[in-house]
Amino acid sequence: MIKITLPDGSVREYTQGSSAMDIAKSISEGLARKVLAAEVNGAVIDASRGITADSSLKLLTWDDNSGKNTFWHSSAHLMAEAVEALFPGVKFWVGPALEKGFYYDMDLGDRKLTEEDLTTLEKKMQELAKQNSQFVRKEIAKNEAITYFIDKNDEYKLDLLQNLKDGEITFYSQGGFTDLCRGPHIPHTGFIKAIKLTNIAGAYWKGDEKNKQLTRLYGITFPNQKELDEYLLMLEEAKKRDHRKLGKELGIFTMDDDVGPGLPLWLPNGTIIIEELEKLAKETESDAGYKRVVTPHIAKESMYLTSGHLPYYADSMFPAMEMDGEKYYLKAMNCPHHHKIFDAEPKSYKDLPYRLAEYGTCYRYEQSGELFGLMRVRCLHMNDAHIYCTKEQFADEFRAVNDMYLKYFKIFGIDKYIMRLSLHDPEKLGQKYINEPALWLETEELVRSVLIESNIPYVEVKGEGAFYGPKIDVQIWSAIGREFTLATNQVDFAQGRRFKLAFTNKENQPEVPLIIHRAPLGTHERFIGFLLEHYAGKFPLWLAPTQVKILPISDKYLPYAQTLLQQLKKADIRAAVDDRNEKIGKKIRDTELMKVPYMLVVGEKEMTEEKVAIRRQGKGDAGVKSLEEFIAEISVEIKERSADI
Amino acid sequence: MIKITLPDGSVREYTQGSSAMDIAKSISEGLARKVLAAEVNGAVIDASRGITADSSLKLLTWDDNSGKNTFWHSSAHLMAEAVEALFPGVKFWVGPALEKGFYYDMDLGDRKLTEEDLTTLEKKMQELAKQNSQFVRKEIAKNEAITYFIDKNDEYKLDLLQNLKDGEITFYSQGGFTDLCRGPHIPHTGFIKAIKLTNIAGAYWKGDEKNKQLTRLYGITFPNQKELDEYLLMLEEAKKRDHRKLGKELGIFTMDDDVGPGLPLWLPNGTIIIEELEKLAKETESDAGYKRVVTPHIAKESMYLTSGHLPYYADSMFPAMEMDGEKYYLKAMNCPHHHKIFDAEPKSYKDLPYRLAEYGTCYRYEQSGELFGLMRVRCLHMNDAHIYCTKEQFADEFRAVNDMYLKYFKIFGIDKYIMRLSLHDPEKLGQKYINEPALWLETEELVRSVLIESNIPYVEVKGEGAFYGPKIDVQIWSAIGREFTLATNQVDFAQGRRFKLAFTNKENQPEVPLIIHRAPLGTHERFIGFLLEHYAGKFPLWLAPTQVKILPISDKYLPYAQTLLQQLKKADIRAAVDDRNEKIGKKIRDTELMKVPYMLVVGEKEMTEEKVAIRRQGKGDAGVKSLEEFIAEISVEIKERSADI
Repeated sequence: MIKITLPDGSVREYTQGSSAMDIAKSISEGLARKVLAAEVNGAVIDASRGITADSSLKLLTWDDNSGKNTFWHSSAHLMAEAVEALFPGVKFWVGPALEKGFYYDMDLGDRKLTEEDLTTLEKKMQELAKQNSQFVRKEIAKNEAITYFIDKNDEYKLDLLQNLKDGEITFYSQGGFTDLCRGPHIPHTGFIKAIKLTNIAGAYWKGDEKNKQLTRLYGITFPNQKELDEYLLMLEEAKKRDHRKLGKELGIFTMDDDVGPGLPLWLPNGTIIIEELEKLAKETESDAGYKRVVTPHIAKESMYLTSGHLPYYADSMFPAMEMDGEKYYLKAMNCPHHHKIFDAEPKSYKDLPYRLAEYGTCYRYEQSGELFGLMRVRCLHMNDAHIYCTKEQFADEFRAVNDMYLKYFKIFGIDKYIMRLSLHDPEKLGQKYINEPALWLETEELVRSVLIESNIPYVEVKGEGAFYGPKIDVQIWSAIGREFTLATNQVDFAQGRRFKLAFTNKENQPEVPLIIHRAPLGTHERFIGFLLEHYAGKFPLWLAPTQVKILPISDKYLPYAQTLLQQLKKADIRAAVDDRNEKIGKKIRDTELMKVPYMLVVGEKEMTEEKVAIRRQGKGDAGVKSLEEFIAEISVEIKERSADI
Repeated sequence: MIKITLPDGSVREYTQGSSAMDIAKSISEGLARKVLAAEVNGAVIDASRGITADSSLKLLTWDDNSGKNTFWHSSAHLMAEAVEALFPGVKFWVGPALEKGFYYDMDLGDRKLTEEDLTTLEKKMQELAKQNSQFVRKEIAKNEAITYFIDKNDEYKLDLLQNLKDGEITFYSQGGFTDLCRGPHIPHTGFIKAIKLTNIAGAYWKGDEKNKQLTRLYGITFPNQKELDEYLLMLEEAKKRDHRKLGKELGIFTMDDDVGPGLPLWLPNGTIIIEELEKLAKETESDAGYKRVVTPHIAKESMYLTSGHLPYYADSMFPAMEMDGEKYYLKAMNCPHHHKIFDAEPKSYKDLPYRLAEYGTCYRYEQSGELFGLMRVRCLHMNDAHIYCTKEQFADEFRAVNDMYLKYFKIFGIDKYIMRLSLHDPEKLGQKYINEPALWLETEELVRSVLIESNIPYVEVKGEGAFYGPKIDVQIWSAIGREFTLATNQVDFAQGRRFKLAFTNKENQPEVPLIIHRAPLGTHERFIGFLLEHYAGKFPLWLAPTQVKILPISDKYLPYAQTLLQQLKKADIRAAVDDRNEKIGKKIRDTELMKVPYMLVVGEKEMTEEKVAIRRQGKGDAGVKSLEEFIAEISVEIKERSADI
């Protein structure tokens, strides 16, 4: 018998060699029907594999990322089976799962796939899936595997085999298809109920443009049709809300070849949003006792040698500028500059917590192929701050930072979020992690307890902490359910020592402060990119570049419109007049397209009665009021940063 | 007879060979007594030199920069005469006039000058000056000059002679001193009435540290004792107001070796001033119809090849970063980025004037020896904007920019200023200046007429315009009479064409806009450096980092002080409590030193009556009031940006 420890801590005994599926069935048949794979002592394996020793076990279903991952990788095999059935002689390279879905790279000879082929393939996959073919794992000797693929004349799999050792090679088969594969896989193809092949692309073999171009076929599958339908709807909505498309239409940002890739230029409308976000951050941080600073965008090599960013982080930094016999670097992070400010004047325990904030602009090198609109850029305007505190102050400070995140989520209508607590790996202390075992455990426990007390949804991930301390990555979901990694919140007990920072403690002794790095609003680039999708470009009033547009029915009412404009401007409302010689219908349509929250239609009646006819973006008629009344109402909406759109 | 044209346009006839001094005497003896030199057809010469042809003539006095310059250069000769009299065998290198005063580099052998030597030298100079020795000019053949200095065993002057051509070599003598010198000089030493030797320094021969170190002796002279006294008083005051000293004491900025020279880090107090200045600029520019943008700090080489900054301006730029096979540069100016934003969306004449503003941060390479506190830096936060307009709009736009300067001068209590209009030189069209003769004349005349209409004091300087159009440099004087070059205002008719910018004009044709570059508040670095001196660190209330300090008489009144603090913060007033366990006298003294505008002293009486006892920085007791009353009063002072200090 072996002892199996389940995630709730309970321990059960099973016959040696029982599989995760056996164990699931022993718990409930309903559960067993959902099991896709199993995590045994931290490693993901087939649910059907026998377990031979005492182990911890987690049954993986569609609700687990590893479950989804296995599901999609198995779907890639199913797709390959269908491709081989329809196009005999096809050769396959690799077919991994993605964050959403999967692809398989294949050599189809001269054949080019068409949209119709995709439909045929989807049907074939449906047919094969229904056969409930089991995924069968087979360990195989290297020479046997080589013989197999020589017989198949498959140079791609032979290439893969070169890097594999005897004893670690496995084949997986389902139905009539066999593949060289590390696994794991789901129990059988019947789990795959809903299938969509989404895209055909070209991909050079091994990513090298000197090699042959293979066909990369993308797909996504689900355990039921409803989820696929929702996903396709979300994709369609995401396309409409594409931040690059909206960013251009609404005059938010532009890119320019002479400036360089990944370096957005913020147009006037985008700059208004930037300034509103900075205003919010400054108010929030001022209330929370932060002091603001301004630091240069460059520093000498010696600074980054001290911080340890050089040489370890050099690949992510811009190359050096050599000047006066020194190397200067664009800053990829604001922390070292802030540390220098902490250090510029002597500090005592009375000065702590000392909180320094700056919307600092950093530059990071990303491969040009990785750049993507505002989401992956080389210039980052970061909502940065560093809190220097004592160990005793740490929990309160960390809690206050979390509260700030929650406050922001409320303002921006972000209902779904999770904090991902990345911990150290005790086996890598001194290599990947600063060698302070006690401090790691202590701060990790402090962070954990704050998260629990604050009732914040979180997951823990071992071995993903920063070099200098535990880290929280905040993941949020946009209104259409797409996931974004927004910001980080990190504890740091290394930099203080490296920079020889100290405060005089109550015992009149020098003591190194703990440091919290935090950036709740992330970067302007990523956050505004997120907001464009989240709001579909329909910004709430306080963020809208143009808040009110005045639409005179004809030129006759232009002078009245101009009077209204002056009064709105005096009340600090961003307003404009549509003075084009166009029909009112067109003016309304164009203003709707530009997603201006309020329209004031003015004609004979409005001018005579000194009123305005109000229309709310997307909602239509909102009554006739005096301008004073309208201004009073929307001034409250602006001041409160109402999330209405 | 020759015809002499005077600055007022009048023409008089004189005997050929008459000197400027002769002509001055013919006008008035009083005038002649003031004449230091003469500008004949644009060249400055001795007032005693004969004029042989029809010429334009300007008599130069102490009121002219060229007059002062000649006076100080002659004073350097007088100093050299005194040094030679006291230390025979001394050898001289060069002795130029400075912006204020003069110096002479000399080889005194092993002798080191002492403070006492300076007093002795001053006395000797006084004595020599009283002899009214004439400065006598003598043209001399090169071989004769060489023989003279070989006899004197003077390797320094022999070195200078190497680079001079026969026919252009002159000696100047006064009293017992003769020097190789291009001139010009003042008529005689008697003009020099007040003398101060200010500093002894070392200077490597030819600035090369491998060469011998010479003694550099600095001095300043005036035509009367009163001006010298005023100057010395100003120097003393300037020392107290040194922006580097105040910057440290008041926590405004710091420098750090690991960041690099010329790269200030702005401390929390300095950042408050930066943010208040930016708020002022944003409000002012928003009222004036500017749109704000945000641009990256780098761009590709191609951008600066288009703008023409590369290769011509390369020495003033930071070196390139090479990445992905491209060269990237830190921006030394914001204009090219703004041009790209202008160009990002199509423009019609209806969109013009199009005004783009950004507090853009630029990086310029300055020799490390030239760096000086905030005054000469490598990182510049610039109050930048670019106005794109039609020719018809130009005068109005230019006038509006000037009005903005005047508005700012009023806010900052800058009473003395002058605009220096730099024009092109027709002879250098196509080389130093873009070859558009008509456009130069037209825009220069437009600028000139705006300056005249606006009644702004200005001077014109030929041959100092920018490459791409006429330029106005704004010079201002601090409260203690020191001169600063603040900002520029430039017309640009080249960049629009280089960047292929265009708008669709009324005739539906593409047309290149004129561009105005302007930066009324200059850079944060220089302007805050100026303000520190101008206000002696006593910032007016709206700019003061801490506006109100609450001083409880003892710990007993700390809770009351904290209540007051909360109310002040709620009213957006920057306040703090002095919670140290110190006597009230010390608290007041320390707060005065930190130049906090208002102090609220609170003790038993104030707490019981719910009042505050107010003290104004530098002015003492300002009565007892309720906090509400106090807040109401200072809120007006802040909102109006009152210049009171």
